[in-house]
Amino acid sequence: MAKPKNAFYAQSGGVTAVINASACGVIETARKHKDKIGKVYAGRNGIVGALTEDLIDTGKESKKAIAALRHTPSGAFGSCRYKLKGLDESRAEYERLIEVFRAHNIGYFFYNGGGDSADTCLKVSQISETMGYPIQAIHVPKTVDNDLPITDCCPGFASAAKYIAVSVREASFDVASMCKTSTKIFVMEVMGRHAGWIAAAGGLAAGEDCDLPIVILFPEIIFNRERFLAKVDAMVKKYGYCSVVVSEGVKTEDGKFLAESSLKDAFGHTQLGGVAPVVANMIKDNLGYRFHWAVADYLQRAARHIASATDVEQAYALGKAAVELAIKGENAVMPAIVRKSDAPYKWKVGVAPLKDVANVEKKMPRNFISRDGLGITAKCRAYLQPLIAGEDYPPYKDGLPQYVRLKNEAVPRKIKDEFKL
Amino acid sequence: MAKPKNAFYAQSGGVTAVINASACGVIETARKHKDKIGKVYAGRNGIVGALTEDLIDTGKESKKAIAALRHTPSGAFGSCRYKLKGLDESRAEYERLIEVFRAHNIGYFFYNGGGDSADTCLKVSQISETMGYPIQAIHVPKTVDNDLPITDCCPGFASAAKYIAVSVREASFDVASMCKTSTKIFVMEVMGRHAGWIAAAGGLAAGEDCDLPIVILFPEIIFNRERFLAKVDAMVKKYGYCSVVVSEGVKTEDGKFLAESSLKDAFGHTQLGGVAPVVANMIKDNLGYRFHWAVADYLQRAARHIASATDVEQAYALGKAAVELAIKGENAVMPAIVRKSDAPYKWKVGVAPLKDVANVEKKMPRNFISRDGLGITAKCRAYLQPLIAGEDYPPYKDGLPQYVRLKNEAVPRKIKDEFKL
Repeated sequence: MAKPKNAFYAQSGGVTAVINASACGVIETARKHKDKIGKVYAGRNGIVGALTEDLIDTGKESKKAIAALRHTPSGAFGSCRYKLKGLDESRAEYERLIEVFRAHNIGYFFYNGGGDSADTCLKVSQISETMGYPIQAIHVPKTVDNDLPITDCCPGFASAAKYIAVSVREASFDVASMCKTSTKIFVMEVMGRHAGWIAAAGGLAAGEDCDLPIVILFPEIIFNRERFLAKVDAMVKKYGYCSVVVSEGVKTEDGKFLAESSLKDAFGHTQLGGVAPVVANMIKDNLGYRFHWAVADYLQRAARHIASATDVEQAYALGKAAVELAIKGENAVMPAIVRKSDAPYKWKVGVAPLKDVANVEKKMPRNFISRDGLGITAKCRAYLQPLIAGEDYPPYKDGLPQYVRLKNEAVPRKIKDEFKL
Repeated sequence: MAKPKNAFYAQSGGVTAVINASACGVIETARKHKDKIGKVYAGRNGIVGALTEDLIDTGKESKKAIAALRHTPSGAFGSCRYKLKGLDESRAEYERLIEVFRAHNIGYFFYNGGGDSADTCLKVSQISETMGYPIQAIHVPKTVDNDLPITDCCPGFASAAKYIAVSVREASFDVASMCKTSTKIFVMEVMGRHAGWIAAAGGLAAGEDCDLPIVILFPEIIFNRERFLAKVDAMVKKYGYCSVVVSEGVKTEDGKFLAESSLKDAFGHTQLGGVAPVVANMIKDNLGYRFHWAVADYLQRAARHIASATDVEQAYALGKAAVELAIKGENAVMPAIVRKSDAPYKWKVGVAPLKDVANVEKKMPRNFISRDGLGITAKCRAYLQPLIAGEDYPPYKDGLPQYVRLKNEAVPRKIKDEFKL
């Protein structure tokens, strides 16, 4: 019997609270099929690890350490921002990948990332055919931006959404307490340069049993200063205060980021100081209300302490499904979340061909955004609500979450040539 | 038997994740002593509610609603920033307070706040003597800044500290994943305009079993640009990345806030855009490292979802103790946390005279800050560690914490005169 092929797993792009849960799903499932899959190697710092032949032997990690990946945020093997382009432009890199895979008897490529990595994954599958070295390339979806097509949602998004919904609820309670004599406006800046999914999650802070004034600025809606200020003013007049959730990607009519419109440093250079202070100062200057603002930045995508249980489960399930698809002989595909019903929420894992995933960006549908462009609709709420359901707390020691750090032992190199990135 | 005197309770200044736990302690304990304490009235929006005779009858709230205060952040009755000055300067206001207390048969004044409110509380006790209307004034400590004297710590601080420690750990894991090709610096701005207690908590993110490069900028230490940049650079060279925790109150040698040093808006006005982007840009300009930055703002003091169990317990205990002290006939005092040992952590409730509390600000001792001024010492860690211990999760529904909102029914007014604030 031939020795089973090894697998290669890499994390790509911005990490999330649950990308390691997908890694856990991949590794634990592969370990159950030793007759089909040999070792699981991980790329140190993502695809860069494959290009530089810097592979990690996950077999050196204990069962307990791998299990702990499920509750550990960030990318346990390191990630990278390194985009492979088309096959012609980046041919040397694709050939190098195949060379490294061949040297280490790797027959499975699991690539855990967003839109760009889906594209890379597809191309690896294509070049492996051209070069006559068989690789089954399976993409495992991940992105807080939730902008991949076909899959109902992307692992990582729901935990960021839960963090934002919880934080906006908490901060809104705070500003409500202060508004009589002090702060009346709280502005929260959230991620999502192109798609407003995370911003929309701020709308969940308010609900049937929790009436809160929340105004949302989406990247999908061109910023309308007058309409925005009028809405905020109306909210303050009605409630005494208002929370604003603003996506970093909000643009003005001239196509520029709203964040760019504001600040210059001592030398007159425009300083990207975040869109939250821009919006807060705009309100102050026009309506006179005192404000506070926050920028969550990495906190929102790293907040494993308040991860969505649904998200953790789906992230794991997609990692597991990726390995099962590989064993079934699938290639150039991505396991995807298929929603069967909103309430009760039911979902299953389906399969999407990578050619339909790569280079397609899923924005918020217009009917998820209220008519005035400043809030979410019931349809949006029905979509988002089940995703943030459930808590999945990590273990704590001395008041802090216990996140695992792997040994990440290198696999001995087999290729003499260095590869220059 | 004479009808027992009523009590007045008010929340003052910036709210916290656990100030309502103190309110819960006050109200639940008062309800157990109906022979000694009649009704508990709360000030709507703090002391402003007393001045304007806008009192809330907490007796209208169900047992369940009052119990839920224990897990609800913010100020359930509203707070305010309204400082009463000396007895001469603000005499009309103190007299008005006594007038309102007299009209509503109030004999107990529970004031839940920081340094300013301790001072007000003391003065209420003094003027009540002068005016011959007896009021027992008890201060219940609260402040995320942790800057009150005598008490070992202040309710509200430990939960903010836990939030910051957890967040810095999570964000550090994130930047560690990205640093190979992308972000190498994460900057987190925290509260604490005068005292660096919250900034110090960022140091807890790293521990014996979790080595992380963290550089802290304290308001107690004059900002030294060269030393700071050298330390950050050394950390990046050793670890590949670095997290910076910066207090909003950091000052430069000329006595100005570091946050002020930077940005001008389109009209040339200085724009207080937060100190985090200032620090991040300084690193980029001098060391060339890519950065991300976050400003937690209200999130850090409202984050009941990750509150410290120790903090919740102490906040409740001090509210309870305030009522018990009142029943014992005490006046012009504050129940305080007395630490009996670090490990195992043991504490009890003691009593401090308000004259020793008012107008004293407790900064970080120099021996809590490392010699280079950029980190915390073992002594500081021993102090902070037990405070963040334990999780006390609120109940959840549909993925969101269920925080209570009270009915806050007004007590019928008895005084004809309006009081102008």
